[in-house]
Amino acid sequence: MKALYFDGKQLTLTDLPVPTPEIGEALVRIRYAGICNTDLEILKGYMGFTGVLGHEFVGVVEEAPYTDLIGKTVVGEINIPCGRCDFCQKGLKNHCPNRKVLGILNKDGVMAEYTTMPIQNLHVVPPNVPELEAVFTEPLAAACEILEQIDIMPDYRILVLGDGKLGQLIAQVLRLHSENVWVVGKSPYKLKLLEQFKIHTVLKDQVDFPPQYFHVVVEVTGNWSGLEMALRYVRPRGFLVLKSTYAGEHPFNPAQLVINEIVLVGSRCGPFPRALSLLERGEVLVEPLLSGIFPLDQYEKAFKRSQEKDVLKILLQVSGEPGE
Amino acid sequence: MKALYFDGKQLTLTDLPVPTPEIGEALVRIRYAGICNTDLEILKGYMGFTGVLGHEFVGVVEEAPYTDLIGKTVVGEINIPCGRCDFCQKGLKNHCPNRKVLGILNKDGVMAEYTTMPIQNLHVVPPNVPELEAVFTEPLAAACEILEQIDIMPDYRILVLGDGKLGQLIAQVLRLHSENVWVVGKSPYKLKLLEQFKIHTVLKDQVDFPPQYFHVVVEVTGNWSGLEMALRYVRPRGFLVLKSTYAGEHPFNPAQLVINEIVLVGSRCGPFPRALSLLERGEVLVEPLLSGIFPLDQYEKAFKRSQEKDVLKILLQVSGEPGE
Repeated sequence: MKALYFDGKQLTLTDLPVPTPEIGEALVRIRYAGICNTDLEILKGYMGFTGVLGHEFVGVVEEAPYTDLIGKTVVGEINIPCGRCDFCQKGLKNHCPNRKVLGILNKDGVMAEYTTMPIQNLHVVPPNVPELEAVFTEPLAAACEILEQIDIMPDYRILVLGDGKLGQLIAQVLRLHSENVWVVGKSPYKLKLLEQFKIHTVLKDQVDFPPQYFHVVVEVTGNWSGLEMALRYVRPRGFLVLKSTYAGEHPFNPAQLVINEIVLVGSRCGPFPRALSLLERGEVLVEPLLSGIFPLDQYEKAFKRSQEKDVLKILLQVSGEPGE
Repeated sequence: MKALYFDGKQLTLTDLPVPTPEIGEALVRIRYAGICNTDLEILKGYMGFTGVLGHEFVGVVEEAPYTDLIGKTVVGEINIPCGRCDFCQKGLKNHCPNRKVLGILNKDGVMAEYTTMPIQNLHVVPPNVPELEAVFTEPLAAACEILEQIDIMPDYRILVLGDGKLGQLIAQVLRLHSENVWVVGKSPYKLKLLEQFKIHTVLKDQVDFPPQYFHVVVEVTGNWSGLEMALRYVRPRGFLVLKSTYAGEHPFNPAQLVINEIVLVGSRCGPFPRALSLLERGEVLVEPLLSGIFPLDQYEKAFKRSQEKDVLKILLQVSGEPGE
C-alpha cells in the first residue's frame, strides 16, 4: 500500500505491506486524512516519532471481528491504551502510561491506504455526516474536552486566544454555551469566518479588554505570549484552559495564580461521541475550515499549503474518488 | 495604645491612638495575634506594606453597632472588600480589586491593643473553643479553602509538600476526607507531630514515591523545588494545589500540564465558618502547633523565635492575662 513514512528526517511516499489486524482490531481503508499542527511538529522532531504519519482520518472498515462493522464509515480515537493498568481501569484510558498513539507514539498513522485499529477506538459516523466533515471529529473532540473539564455557565465571558483550526472549533463549541465568546487572532480572514456564529473577534494588536475581564480564557496560540495574555485577562477564580504546548522553558512566576485563585486546566484529547453528535445535529460547522484537498501523492504540495497564510485544514485524499 | 508598627524598614513598638470605628465597624481589643510567614515576608518588603503588622488574631468586641456583639470573643476575616464592585456582588469578595487586607494592604493590622473591623468580617468564637485555638482560625480557613475548590474523594492519594504551620493544618483537614495523606518535610520533629493523626510522613531526602502517584498534591513549601516535586508526583488528570508564592521568576514549561491534563489550582484565603466548626467539633487539633507565647513588648524575641528550627506557631499576647 502507499504510505507517507517519516524516517526521522524525511517524509516520503513509500510502498509498505498492508498491516494485519491483531485480535480485536479492524482493518480500515483510509478515505481522508487531515494535516494537523502536531504532524508539522513531528516533522521537526516532536516525540521522536518514526513511522507512518497522521492521526486524523475517516475511513471504511474492510475487516473486523464483528461483521456488522464491515463496510461502515468510521473515525477513530488516537490513544490506544493497554486496558490493564490502573489508569485504564479507572476510565482514564487516554492517560494510560503504556498507550500507543496513532501516528505519534509507537503506532503507524493514517496517511496510508490502510490502518489497523482496536474496534473500541472506532466510532461509526452517523449517516447524515459527510466524510469531509467526519474527518474533523478528532480536533472537534479536543475542543469538546473543555466541556468535560469546566461547567460553562451562560453568563460567562469567554476569551479564546488563537484563530487557527483548533481555536475556531473551540470558539464554536463554547459559543453553544455562552453568548459572550471572543476570539483574538492575527488573521482578518480567519476571524471573519467566526462572525457567522455571532462570535466576537479582535485582532491581536487591537486588543483592549479591561484586565481580569474573562471567566474563562482558552490559550491555543502555541506561543508563550499567549499564556502571558491569558494571565492578563483571566479574572480571579477564573479558568485558564491551556491547549498549547510550547517548545523550551520560559521565565515564570505562578504567584498570580495563587493570589487570584486561578484554576489552570491542561486540556488535550476529547470525547468522540460528543463531537460526532455536534456534527450530526449541525451545531458545529466544519466546512468553513476546509482549505484544500490533495491526493496522497501530492503530499508535498499539501504540507506546504497547510503552512501558508490564511489556510486552515488541508486534507489528504487517500483512496476512492474525491468527494465520494 | 501599644502597636507594632512597620515603617518599611524597621518594626518598632510604638504608641498610637486607639482607632475609631467607621460606620458598620466594631472596635476589637486584641487578645492574641499570630506570627505568620506572610508577616516575615512583609518585613522583607513584600507588598510594600507600612503600618501596624499582623492579620491573625482573637479578640473581644468593645464597641459595635449591634450591642449583642459587645463582649463577644471574635476572630476576623482579613479581606475587607468594597461591597459594591462586580466581584463583591458575585460573592467573590476575597478577590475585590478595591479590597483592603488586614496588616497587608492599606489597613492597619492586629499586633496592637485595638483594631477596627467591619462587623461582616467578624465571627463569634464558639464557647467551647479556647482563645489559644481560635487564633488559628485564619490559617485553618486557608487550609479549608482546598475543600471549597476540589471534591476530595475517599480513595484519593494526597501528598502535602511542606511540614510547616500551613502544611500541618492542610494535612489534618485533608486527612478528614481521605485515609491516604502523605506529608513530605525537612523536620523530623514537625513530621512526628502528624503521626498522631495517622498521616504518613517522609523526609524530603528520603522520598521514593512512584512518579505520578497522587491524585492531589498540595505545594506549600514556599520553594520552587516544591513545585518541581509536585509536578513529578501528581497523576494525569490530578490536582496540583498551589499555596506557595515564590520570589522571582523561574524557567518553566507547562507542556506536562497539558499532556497530562493536570488541573493547577491557586488557593489562598478560606472560609472562617468551616474552620471554626472544625475547631468546635475538635476535628482539627491546633494545640500541637503552638510553639510559644510572648508578650507584645517582647516582639523581638518572638519574631526571632518564630524563625528558628522546629518552631511552628508563635503568638503575641497583646492584652489581658496569659491563658485568660
